[in-house]
Amino acid sequence: MAPIITLLTDFGTADGYVGEMKGVLLTEVPGATVVDISHELPAHEVEIGRLTVARYWRRFPPGTVHVAVVDPGVGSSRAALAIQSDGRFLVGPDNGLLSPALLIGGARVVALSVPTHASATFHGRDVFAPAAAQLARGVEVGALGSPANDPIVRRTPEPHRDTSGDLVGEAIAVDRFGNVITNLVGMRGGRVVVAGREIPVRRTYAELETGEVGAVVGSTGLIEIVVREGRASDILALTRGATIVLR
Amino acid sequence: MAPIITLLTDFGTADGYVGEMKGVLLTEVPGATVVDISHELPAHEVEIGRLTVARYWRRFPPGTVHVAVVDPGVGSSRAALAIQSDGRFLVGPDNGLLSPALLIGGARVVALSVPTHASATFHGRDVFAPAAAQLARGVEVGALGSPANDPIVRRTPEPHRDTSGDLVGEAIAVDRFGNVITNLVGMRGGRVVVAGREIPVRRTYAELETGEVGAVVGSTGLIEIVVREGRASDILALTRGATIVLR
Amino acid sequence: MAPIITLLTDFGTADGYVGEMKGVLLTEVPGATVVDISHELPAHEVEIGRLTVARYWRRFPPGTVHVAVVDPGVGSSRAALAIQSDGRFLVGPDNGLLSPALLIGGARVVALSVPTHASATFHGRDVFAPAAAQLARGVEVGALGSPANDPIVRRTPEPHRDTSGDLVGEAIAVDRFGNVITNLVGMRGGRVVVAGREIPVRRTYAELETGEVGAVVGSTGLIEIVVREGRASDILALTRGATIVLR
Repeated sequence: MAPIITLLTDFGTADGYVGEMKGVLLTEVPGATVVDISHELPAHEVEIGRLTVARYWRRFPPGTVHVAVVDPGVGSSRAALAIQSDGRFLVGPDNGLLSPALLIGGARVVALSVPTHASATFHGRDVFAPAAAQLARGVEVGALGSPANDPIVRRTPEPHRDTSGDLVGEAIAVDRFGNVITNLVGMRGGRVVVAGREIPVRRTYAELETGEVGAVVGSTGLIEIVVREGRASDILALTRGATIVLR
Repeated sequence: MAPIITLLTDFGTADGYVGEMKGVLLTEVPGATVVDISHELPAHEVEIGRLTVARYWRRFPPGTVHVAVVDPGVGSSRAALAIQSDGRFLVGPDNGLLSPALLIGGARVVALSVPTHASATFHGRDVFAPAAAQLARGVEVGALGSPANDPIVRRTPEPHRDTSGDLVGEAIAVDRFGNVITNLVGMRGGRVVVAGREIPVRRTYAELETGEVGAVVGSTGLIEIVVREGRASDILALTRGATIVLR
Repeated sequence: MAPIITLLTDFGTADGYVGEMKGVLLTEVPGATVVDISHELPAHEVEIGRLTVARYWRRFPPGTVHVAVVDPGVGSSRAALAIQSDGRFLVGPDNGLLSPALLIGGARVVALSVPTHASATFHGRDVFAPAAAQLARGVEVGALGSPANDPIVRRTPEPHRDTSGDLVGEAIAVDRFGNVITNLVGMRGGRVVVAGREIPVRRTYAELETGEVGAVVGSTGLIEIVVREGRASDILALTRGATIVLR
């Protein structure tokens, strides 16, 4: 079966940087299945990229190679990583972007050797794509560099319990639809307090009236603040970090 | 030959929802050719999605499985459909999005069984992608659910003839270039009246001066209002539903 | 090995035009690997498209067929080209977009025959995709049309040396990150003058402070004006054509 290589970047596509990476991959791994996850991550937003990686990386079959590049530190001393975790491979900068794979037991991590000819500004083409190609061709992760003992790990903040016993969480992301994703694990029947309002937890958008604010358990099991056919983030003026309480 | 599965959504790509769907598809159909049509449909705009589906669904070879998800009613009682029509397969919500395939003689339609574990907010991943995978692997459409007898069908509005014999149509879409697509079937030599102006029907943009307003017969055979190297929708302040007359 | 066909357009994806092209390609070349470069080029910006083509076209393996369509002159008398150059094939309008391949010794160029049924407004679907399909199936470029003797060639403007011996160049592009790409070939240790300021040439963004303006040698060897974690184009109010001097 053709190896699968996925790409997640904040490069946009119009400048041709992603095209260059695809050319490298298809030259070095003839017949590879190259899959676009996204190139429209907001520029330099490592945290948003991390949450996106968390969503898809284990949905792909074992053996898949995931390349993820949101890399404001390119050319600095930050390490370039290759990871083997839960049967998949991941390649990208050591800035927390690949944390979801590092938090799984048994993950192996190496710091990639950077080729001397590599551009100091475009490791996606000259470091990460070549490493991904090697992994896709079956090279052992251990052969790509030296063990990385202390890679940067980012975690979703944990909610805490306040004196009244409520769980105090926060908004961790806003999606394209203006749904506000929280760090609160979903629970039917709970009540959520957000922006001074108590709102009910529903099973689905369809249990709300058009324009009504509510909470639903989203597709990763976390509570989301939503407005049926509207943008909760705009209507409630919620951004990342806003406090959301589960009562 | 590897089965072809196409994807059309209003999800954007940055949040990773499309990545999750691709992971499901490539896990369940190893070697599938997964084709992005678009993930940039305006959120919840079923009608725009319907016109897009109409453009491409029969351009792909027989056997292709088209997944299309613009689904403001996800989680409600709206049915989830699988369709076999003209040798292709389509999967998506029962809201008119897939109408182009329903209007062809011989179409078979079933209402998909929704798995009990399916997220109430993300049928793209948990209902539509798995159904598409089954069709791509050769499962009969009839095995995926029970016959759907009355799926929602949307149609492009028909122009009508007024007392003077003119055909009165309307703008049905505005494309990326600001071209205004009408429901009037093209006719060389006719004259079009729009926003109080009579404009000529030309064979191509190139028969207009730069900045001149005109009408051309577009690539689906319908009359489009265009401005050479300009945006007709902006210049004439035309939006969907605006009256366009063919004289 | 499956033939590779890449696509670069200014069509966006939502209207379905790109979907139509992919349908044509996958119908005519079963099993082809169709690769998106971008569909988000600014509308009608041939020059930006040319610089993008320059980046990726030779990164793909020999035999690749590149389709590039930024085509404000569609339907006019402008020729439609197919090119064989350095072992790759390119198809697109004769407006300079494909210049990077024309500037290589040994390039062969033909003017495509336009099928009589071709839409006058959508050569991407009816002229370029079918020609690309033929090339991908192994048809000789010479069989697709008649020799084109004088295709339009665009070149990046050359810097000139002023009386003081400085090299006077200009901004040729602004990328997604607001980096300003110049026509000055990189040189470590030089000093760059831009917008009345002298700035140092660094090896990488990481040698700048956050928010500091500098110059780096970009991934194609050209000097770029950058701001670490900021947008140089906005901060220095630089657009294409702005003067940049290398001292």
